Amino acid sequence: MKNCLRRNVPPGFKPFLGTNEYKNHKRFIIDEVISTNTSKVISDISKLFDLLKITDGFTLSFHHHLRNGDEVMNMVLSEVKKRGIKNITLAATGIFANNDMIAQLIIDGNITNIYANYINGKTGKVISEGYLQGNLIMQTHGGRPRSIEAGELKIDVAFIATSIADKFGNGNGLLGKNACGVLGYTIADMLYAKKKVIVTDSLVERVEYCQIEAKYIDYCLVVESIGKQSGIVSGTTKITKDPIGLKIARDAAMFIEEAGLINNGFSMQTGAGGTSLAVASFVKDIMKNNNIKASFASGGITSYFVSMLKEGLINNLYDVQCFDLDAVASAKINENHKIISASKYANPFDNPIVNNLDFVILGATEIDLDFNVNVTTSSSGLIMGGSGGHSDTAHGAKLTIIVSPTMKARTPIIKDKVTVITTPGEDVDVLVTERGIAINPRRFDLIEQFKNSKLKIVSIKKLLEMTHKYTGIPQNVEFEKRVVGVVEYRDGSIIDSIFQVRNNYEL
Amino acid sequence: MKNCLRRNVPPGFKPFLGTNEYKNHKRFIIDEVISTNTSKVISDISKLFDLLKITDGFTLSFHHHLRNGDEVMNMVLSEVKKRGIKNITLAATGIFANNDMIAQLIIDGNITNIYANYINGKTGKVISEGYLQGNLIMQTHGGRPRSIEAGELKIDVAFIATSIADKFGNGNGLLGKNACGVLGYTIADMLYAKKKVIVTDSLVERVEYCQIEAKYIDYCLVVESIGKQSGIVSGTTKITKDPIGLKIARDAAMFIEEAGLINNGFSMQTGAGGTSLAVASFVKDIMKNNNIKASFASGGITSYFVSMLKEGLINNLYDVQCFDLDAVASAKINENHKIISASKYANPFDNPIVNNLDFVILGATEIDLDFNVNVTTSSSGLIMGGSGGHSDTAHGAKLTIIVSPTMKARTPIIKDKVTVITTPGEDVDVLVTERGIAINPRRFDLIEQFKNSKLKIVSIKKLLEMTHKYTGIPQNVEFEKRVVGVVEYRDGSIIDSIFQVRNNYEL
Repeated sequence: MKNCLRRNVPPGFKPFLGTNEYKNHKRFIIDEVISTNTSKVISDISKLFDLLKITDGFTLSFHHHLRNGDEVMNMVLSEVKKRGIKNITLAATGIFANNDMIAQLIIDGNITNIYANYINGKTGKVISEGYLQGNLIMQTHGGRPRSIEAGELKIDVAFIATSIADKFGNGNGLLGKNACGVLGYTIADMLYAKKKVIVTDSLVERVEYCQIEAKYIDYCLVVESIGKQSGIVSGTTKITKDPIGLKIARDAAMFIEEAGLINNGFSMQTGAGGTSLAVASFVKDIMKNNNIKASFASGGITSYFVSMLKEGLINNLYDVQCFDLDAVASAKINENHKIISASKYANPFDNPIVNNLDFVILGATEIDLDFNVNVTTSSSGLIMGGSGGHSDTAHGAKLTIIVSPTMKARTPIIKDKVTVITTPGEDVDVLVTERGIAINPRRFDLIEQFKNSKLKIVSIKKLLEMTHKYTGIPQNVEFEKRVVGVVEYRDGSIIDSIFQVRNNYEL
Repeated sequence: MKNCLRRNVPPGFKPFLGTNEYKNHKRFIIDEVISTNTSKVISDISKLFDLLKITDGFTLSFHHHLRNGDEVMNMVLSEVKKRGIKNITLAATGIFANNDMIAQLIIDGNITNIYANYINGKTGKVISEGYLQGNLIMQTHGGRPRSIEAGELKIDVAFIATSIADKFGNGNGLLGKNACGVLGYTIADMLYAKKKVIVTDSLVERVEYCQIEAKYIDYCLVVESIGKQSGIVSGTTKITKDPIGLKIARDAAMFIEEAGLINNGFSMQTGAGGTSLAVASFVKDIMKNNNIKASFASGGITSYFVSMLKEGLINNLYDVQCFDLDAVASAKINENHKIISASKYANPFDNPIVNNLDFVILGATEIDLDFNVNVTTSSSGLIMGGSGGHSDTAHGAKLTIIVSPTMKARTPIIKDKVTVITTPGEDVDVLVTERGIAINPRRFDLIEQFKNSKLKIVSIKKLLEMTHKYTGIPQNVEFEKRVVGVVEYRDGSIIDSIFQVRNNYEL
């Protein structure tokens, strides 16, 4: 045979058709050879346990991208229970009420150690009551990937709920019947766990864009359902209508403006709470009135920020997790909606996005006179939250604002000392309440700057005293001596301990 | 124990020391767990062959970053020979005179198929003489990674000479007693070979910057010597002093300037030959006289370009291979000296650097009236070179210039038809000789532009006729009917065949 240059081409070879011919073809990349030899699909969880030799003492990891809709953790832990496996270390990025079955496994000793960034529901209650035989280590979103990459948290098997996957182990969270969006919290597990299993209910021929890459994956467990997509919208992700919340939000936005942080190219994170989103909406008004555009917003992403991206008010979103379906849809199609890992989001050693934040709006269950914040337990000491990205963003942002009413259900938010420190006062700059704005004395620059402000600046002590007039001085809560958990700061050090609650604790 | 916030820290935990404490520590990343469990070090090549079950029919790959100083390929093939293993496919990016031992293995049937981008020395001779029982496939620097990622070239074991390595399998070419610089040609092998072995003579505790990453590596073979660093400087890497070469170079530079390609931000590749470097030096003069800076130079990098980088005349070097020790040193310390893979350099599907080139200066063993270029064989048909990046850069660059005298040792360079097509005339724009400059008729834009140029523009046919006056019309070389090799264009198609030479061929 001759090619287009009339040169000889031996049989079995492809003739040259011109130097631009390649443009008529798509790039073809095989998986690494290991991936192509065998399909990794398995549909029997019991067989998977046998193959992975999952037994007493294993560390199993999960992520919370499906939030209150996740069924993967329950499914795997049911198999643990069925087999009577003991002494499991559960490394879950988040535990929700949906996972309340964990409580019994703790009581029965199937699970004896837990790593989590956030715990809600019955699981927190039984841990607070002292049922967990080993340690609870509460981490941050940035601290967890740091501890994994550093070999502190060693995961035997990572189970990664992946809403769409192929048999080789490629997958992402953007497609499939239970699309939950960005899988930012899974990446460290994918990279460093000894064995990695993706769990999917949408197996397709080929996944094109892969947040989960075949080369890291050992098995692809195909199940009927990984959960309910609708569960990703848990809690409020709408702007508050509460007048107190709105006043706080307006004052917070005015404070940020007066602090000089709303300029072209600024960046922010506000979270998904009703008051936080209200701050975003007031900031948006300021932006529009002054024709200002933000460079980015980060964190868990809601439709509110998606619409700001669409309107061109924000150049980029850095998304570690989608909080609603608009965010999922946007992450899928908008190239300025950037998908990032938890490490890139908040790992102190990964030059994280949080370090570029101008301001962050955060909540608090308690805040004390040193501006230390508790979002890990209730005032009665019951575990019902966790840092998530709280202390990561508080450290990274130029200005960290806590928005909170002075009291919730007649319980004061401001304390002499918080029950548990989640985020140190060193990184908390301002508390905005309905009764005034307290600036951390460490920020003498801000105190100076706001000396003549029309905003009501008061000391946090003054706010505490005002609150006590309404609530009375709350009784000190007494705890058992036993430590049931520790709060690990993002660098791996322990910032506080969580003590066992007394039998008569109030919910 | 209490931490700095006077909070309880249970025994065995690290106390919190402040939010900025992490800045006092370096990032620590474990290898993936698979890597940390066992050291991959092995020092006995025979044991390694047993472990890898290397036997008849295996495809073994090597790279030529140590060029004429490499001993790794010889060492491994000696073991092949010793064991009497037959039918090996040798996939070497480059074969040099230093590897002449291969010739005997071809004759004896140990090696029956060869993939290479460049072949010099005795190996080419015995292949041309018909001793290779299977196929020789001559690839390009960009075509090879393309064929590997596409699963066309399937490598059983990649042997990667790595001048410094740790026991986990991390390594690079920048350090160690035989530092050879960038390891750009190894990356596709590292990613896609079934098994990957790094071979080093400098085992250290920990390699910090890793071009070769532990997660891809199966074994780390530690040997007395991987070769001789000094061998990387093979051939001329100094500016020519030959007056004919200098005239050609000056005219080429003037042509480029007149073509309007020397502007701020332009990019170039010139290769390491004496005439090519002379072009670079004339271009440099033009740049200095006009206060022009280049955005980048690419390819194999020499000290000449390192000094231009240092002088601020070039913003970045994109280095796939270091041609001398100054380049090695620069790649190690200068962050604008970018380390790239062969795929990023030239794979047509990897949006390669070559596509951004304004001009490239290339050589030719032969060029024909259609501007097809042969750098694969001599005029007598003996294999003594190969494309390397020739056809990759010729396709990518806006302007491709061949610099060559009209004759070498009384043999004319211009032919009616080249013996073997390496690079199609479709991608060759200009031939600059000492007797005039020929523009490819396909580039009617250039022909128009240079109509009134002071440079001597002549047709290539005219140059051929002028040359024949001195050399006479050379006799046609006759070949055997047997095809001993094919020239694979970068897209995987066959651009030409290489025929067996007759017994009476002239060297």
